[in-house]
Amino acid sequence: MPEQITLYTAKICPWAHRAEIALAEAKIPFKRFEIDLKNKPEWYAPKVNPASKVPAISYGGPDVDPATPSPESQKIAESGILIELFADLSKEELLPKDPIARARARFFAETVTSAAVGPWYSAVTRGEDPAPFLKALDIVQSLLPAEGFAVGQWSIADAAVTPFFARAEATFKNDIGKYEVGKGKALWATVESDPKYARFRKYFEDVKSRDSFKTTFDSDVVIKSFSALHGRPSA
Amino acid sequence: MPEQITLYTAKICPWAHRAEIALAEAKIPFKRFEIDLKNKPEWYAPKVNPASKVPAISYGGPDVDPATPSPESQKIAESGILIELFADLSKEELLPKDPIARARARFFAETVTSAAVGPWYSAVTRGEDPAPFLKALDIVQSLLPAEGFAVGQWSIADAAVTPFFARAEATFKNDIGKYEVGKGKALWATVESDPKYARFRKYFEDVKSRDSFKTTFDSDVVIKSFSALHGRPSA
Ligand SMILES: N[C@@H](CCC(=O)N[C@@H](CS)C(=O)NCC(=O)O)C(=O)O
Ligand SMILES: N[C@@H](CCC(=O)N[C@@H](CS)C(=O)NCC(=O)O)C(=O)O
Repeated sequence: MPEQITLYTAKICPWAHRAEIALAEAKIPFKRFEIDLKNKPEWYAPKVNPASKVPAISYGGPDVDPATPSPESQKIAESGILIELFADLSKEELLPKDPIARARARFFAETVTSAAVGPWYSAVTRGEDPAPFLKALDIVQSLLPAEGFAVGQWSIADAAVTPFFARAEATFKNDIGKYEVGKGKALWATVESDPKYARFRKYFEDVKSRDSFKTTFDSDVVIKSFSALHGRPSA
Repeated sequence: MPEQITLYTAKICPWAHRAEIALAEAKIPFKRFEIDLKNKPEWYAPKVNPASKVPAISYGGPDVDPATPSPESQKIAESGILIELFADLSKEELLPKDPIARARARFFAETVTSAAVGPWYSAVTRGEDPAPFLKALDIVQSLLPAEGFAVGQWSIADAAVTPFFARAEATFKNDIGKYEVGKGKALWATVESDPKYARFRKYFEDVKSRDSFKTTFDSDVVIKSFSALHGRPSA
């Protein structure tokens, strides 16, 4: 039985969302503490994560108020490391047992994340053309098996990438971001209708239909925060 | 018992060196195939690694000549994923069993690599001041336990970082690189004598004294290749 886990997280953050999805699938109880990234508590960096980022956890130690973390608990950061930890701690099989399938899961997580994050983020925050985002979908499709998740059964590889696709949909579909007006909507219309992306669409529906996604994704918060930060539709 | 493994590697490459150290510690038999990075075989990208980088492995399938890889073997790339795979395949304990210690090992690998690679590589290849490399040593020292390796017992976290320190020593100590003449030697003299870096020195000696390092590091090749590519002492 794992010891107490307190997750320091933020609804808008895709990296933190990875940890929330994995914890939900792991069926490990935890305390959730929302960090306001625009106004971080002054104790957060010194007492929880020196890098001052979410996600991070405290593990073990006494049962304290998350806002007064105990020096006796372990502190662990980095979403990629946390989702591996939750797989290691869980009774659920969040990574296949077969070593080669585990390697494929990790390769999927790493490759898809690095293909998707850059094009999405630079379109939204720096106004670059969103079109290169479609190449990430080609890569996802080239790695996915004919059916099911990244390596067939659901795994932390799916937790690693889902938060980015969810935020890409929320922003592009609503034309949120600094790119030319209409380009986000047009791109997402392609994703939703082009026969070329049928396998991606099925995959995306599959991950979004899981409780671990439905209970951890707040599209209103994401839409509001990204519009406020990067423009449209509320601007 | 793991199936056949063929490792595509290159002596100069620190990422490939991670895989060689981990395989040696894993005591898993494998075939080693040197890829000449200046003249890669035309079959390498299409048949082994589409990203055209080392390290990569073929796993399983028939026992073939590494220069004619079989389509029936699995192909896996990315050093971070390969060292996890070798830990999963090995009978040796290359990662501790305790989930939190595993997370600490992964955090050490990720944090130290990202602190060390940039300063070393930009000094050698772009002529920037090597001094910021010392900050990476502060980080190593802040994460190391009082004795032993990254998490006490030797682990793949040590395989992940050793190749970079070995190449930093080979280049700085011999003043190889595009930075101002003398700055590499001066920096390494500090590393070797300043009481501040005693814990790093002990750690570095410990990893270098292992067979897994001694049988996989060819300092002559590294010194010659880096001098030829980036200048001095042969230039
Ligand atoms: N590599 C980290 C990235 C985490 C990250 O960048 N989090 C952002 C929010 S999405 C953060 O906390 N930034 C610090 C800040 O906004 O002050 C991980 O995977 O956990
Ligand atoms: N992220 C990769 C990096 C591997 C890498 O960059 N390898 C270099 C040599 S050190 C390479 O093969 N580059 C391709 C080339 O030189 O053509 C890993 O960790 O395996």
